[in-house]
Amino acid sequence: MREYGHGGDIYGQTNILDFSASLNPVGMPYEIVDAVRRSALESSPYPDPQLRRLREVASDRLGVPAESLVFGNGASDLIYRICLALRPEKALIEEPAFSEYQKGLELAGCEIFHHAQTRENGFRTDADGLMKAIAEVRPDMIFMGCPSNPAGTVVDRIDLIRICDCAKNTGATVVIDRSFIHFVEGEDESFFREETLERDNVILLDSMTKIFAMAGLRLGFMITGNAGICEAVENSLQPWPVSRPAEEAGIAAFGVGPEFFAKTKRYVTKERAYLLEGLGSLGMETFDSRANYVFFRSPADLEGLKDRGILLRYCGNYRSLDGSYYRAAVRTHEENEALLEALRDVLREKEESDG
Amino acid sequence: MREYGHGGDIYGQTNILDFSASLNPVGMPYEIVDAVRRSALESSPYPDPQLRRLREVASDRLGVPAESLVFGNGASDLIYRICLALRPEKALIEEPAFSEYQKGLELAGCEIFHHAQTRENGFRTDADGLMKAIAEVRPDMIFMGCPSNPAGTVVDRIDLIRICDCAKNTGATVVIDRSFIHFVEGEDESFFREETLERDNVILLDSMTKIFAMAGLRLGFMITGNAGICEAVENSLQPWPVSRPAEEAGIAAFGVGPEFFAKTKRYVTKERAYLLEGLGSLGMETFDSRANYVFFRSPADLEGLKDRGILLRYCGNYRSLDGSYYRAAVRTHEENEALLEALRDVLREKEESDG
Repeated sequence: MREYGHGGDIYGQTNILDFSASLNPVGMPYEIVDAVRRSALESSPYPDPQLRRLREVASDRLGVPAESLVFGNGASDLIYRICLALRPEKALIEEPAFSEYQKGLELAGCEIFHHAQTRENGFRTDADGLMKAIAEVRPDMIFMGCPSNPAGTVVDRIDLIRICDCAKNTGATVVIDRSFIHFVEGEDESFFREETLERDNVILLDSMTKIFAMAGLRLGFMITGNAGICEAVENSLQPWPVSRPAEEAGIAAFGVGPEFFAKTKRYVTKERAYLLEGLGSLGMETFDSRANYVFFRSPADLEGLKDRGILLRYCGNYRSLDGSYYRAAVRTHEENEALLEALRDVLREKEESDG
Repeated sequence: MREYGHGGDIYGQTNILDFSASLNPVGMPYEIVDAVRRSALESSPYPDPQLRRLREVASDRLGVPAESLVFGNGASDLIYRICLALRPEKALIEEPAFSEYQKGLELAGCEIFHHAQTRENGFRTDADGLMKAIAEVRPDMIFMGCPSNPAGTVVDRIDLIRICDCAKNTGATVVIDRSFIHFVEGEDESFFREETLERDNVILLDSMTKIFAMAGLRLGFMITGNAGICEAVENSLQPWPVSRPAEEAGIAAFGVGPEFFAKTKRYVTKERAYLLEGLGSLGMETFDSRANYVFFRSPADLEGLKDRGILLRYCGNYRSLDGSYYRAAVRTHEENEALLEALRDVLREKEESDG
C-alpha cells in the first residue's frame, strides 16, 4: 500500500465533505470539461513529447518565452524532476511546507535543512531569519511556498527578491511554489514572473489543479530564466509525463477569461472571512491566510469530525507543527456552514464528555 | 527542448502516416473512449492515491492479488520508479531494447552491462549466452523485453524460467517487459503470471497503451510476487501518477471482451505476414517478429520516406544496432500497402540517382 500523507483521499468512503484538499470552490470551468471530453477520441497517439500547442498557448498567456516553460504530470511530478535533474547536495526548506519537497530532495540524496515559520510570527516568512539560515547552511537549493502551505501567508515581493539574491550569493536555486497564488487578492499569474526571468537562480513552480479544480487531470508547470535548468528538468524522468487529456485541459485553461479569476477571488475572500470568524468564535486560534484555505489551532482534538463525514487536513505530520494544527479548504458557503456546525457539535460533545 | 529518441512524434507535421509508434491497428475500444468522456466531470478531485477501483478490477481480470499490482503513468513511469526504488548497483540489459531502461538505470547511478541479441541468431534470446553473462556480471537487476523491442522475438517460457532462476542465484531482480505480449498468437495476459507470482525476483512490466491504442492516456502496470518490491515502487516518486481519465480508461479496458483480442491477433498476424512478404520482395532483410511491428534491415537508407509523409522507427540510435535497421508498426491494410508502395518508390529513385 502507498504511504499517503496528503489530503484529498475521499475514496473508499461515502458522503464525504472533503476540506482536506484545497481546490477552487467555484469548480472546473466548463471549457475544461469540454476539452477533456473532446480529447477522448484523440488519445490514441502518444502525447506530443514537446507539448508544442500547450507550450505556445501558455507562453502567450503567461508572457513567458515558450522555452522557459516545463510542464509536468502535476506540480508534484516537477518537484521530483527538479530534484533529480539538479541533484542539490544541501537544501533548505522553509517549513511548514508541502512534504513532497522533502521526499524529492531525499530521493536525490540531498542533505536537508529547515527554517521554520513560527506561531509567534503568525507563520509569516521571517526574511532576515531565512537569509541568515541561507548564509549559514549555504544550500544549493531552497524550497518555499508562496502562499505558504498550510499557513497561506505570502512573503513581500521585496523580501522575496532579497531572499533570491541572497541565495544567488551562496549558489542556490530558489524554488518558489506559487501553486495557490491565483487565489490571492491583488496577485495573478504575473506574480514574480519578471523577477524570475531576469535571474538564473529562480524556479517558479505552478499548479493548474487548484485554481481550475482539475486535480484529477494532473497538470503543473514551471518557469525559469535559466535555460540549462529548463533543459535538465525537461529531460528528467519519462518522455511523456503529460497525457493528452491534460494537455487539452491545459490549452483550454489558458484560454479562461478574467471573470473566472475575479469571481473566484471574490468568493474565496468572502468565504475565508466567514470561516475565520466562525473558527475564532469557536475558540480556535486562527492565522492570516491569503489562500483558499484556512489554518488554525484547535484547543481540542477534532477526530470526531470524521464520524460526521467531514475531512480536515490534520497537520500533525507536518514537520515543525504538532497535532493541534489543522488546515481546511474554503469551500462553498453551505459547505463552510456545515463545517462550522459540525465543529460546534464536536467541541460541545467533547466538553460534555470531559465535564 | 526535450531530447527525444522514440517513435510517435507526429506533432508539428501534417498528413503523417506514423509507422514509428506501434499501437493496435484495430484502434481504441469504444468503451475506453466513453470512459474518458465520462471522467471529465469527475476529474476535479485528486485521483485515488490507492487506485482502489482500478486495482480491484485489474486483480479480477488478471488473476493477480490486488497487492501484487502497481500502476503508473505509462510503463515508462514504472521503469523510473523501479530503478529509483530498488537502486541496483549493477544491471544487465538484453539489447537491442527500449532506451528508457538505460536512462532509468543511469538515473539511479547504476553500472550498466549489455548482452546483445545478434543478427546471426535472428535477434532471438540466446538463453545460454545471457545466463553466462549473468554469472559473469552478477547484476542486481536485468531488463529484457518479451516480445523484444524492436525485434519482436519471444523467448521460450522454459528459457525464461531458467534465466529467472539463474538471476535468483546472483541476487538479481528480472524486469520482463511484456508490453507487446497481447499481440502474440498463443499468448495473453496470463503470460508468465504464475511464474512471476511464485518467485520473489521477477517483475512483469505491462503497458495498456499499445494493445488498447490509448498511448495518449498514459497507463501501465507491473506485477510482482515480492511484497517488498511492490511497496517500494508504490512509494517511489509522486503520490498521484495516474490521472482520473487514465484510471477510468483502465477500468473500462479491463472489461473489454475476448473478441477484441482475437480480432486484434487475427488482423495483426495477417498484416504482419503481408508486410514481411512485401519487405522481403523489396530486398529487405526481415526478421521473425511475433509482435505488432516488423523489424528489418534495408540495403539503402530510407530517408526519402519522410518526404512522402511516412515515419518509420529508425533504429540507428539503438545500442547494438546500426543505421541500416528499421522498425515499422503493423497498421491497417491500406496503410501497410501505402508503406510498401512508398518504399518501392524510394528504392527506385535511389537506384536511379545512384545509377
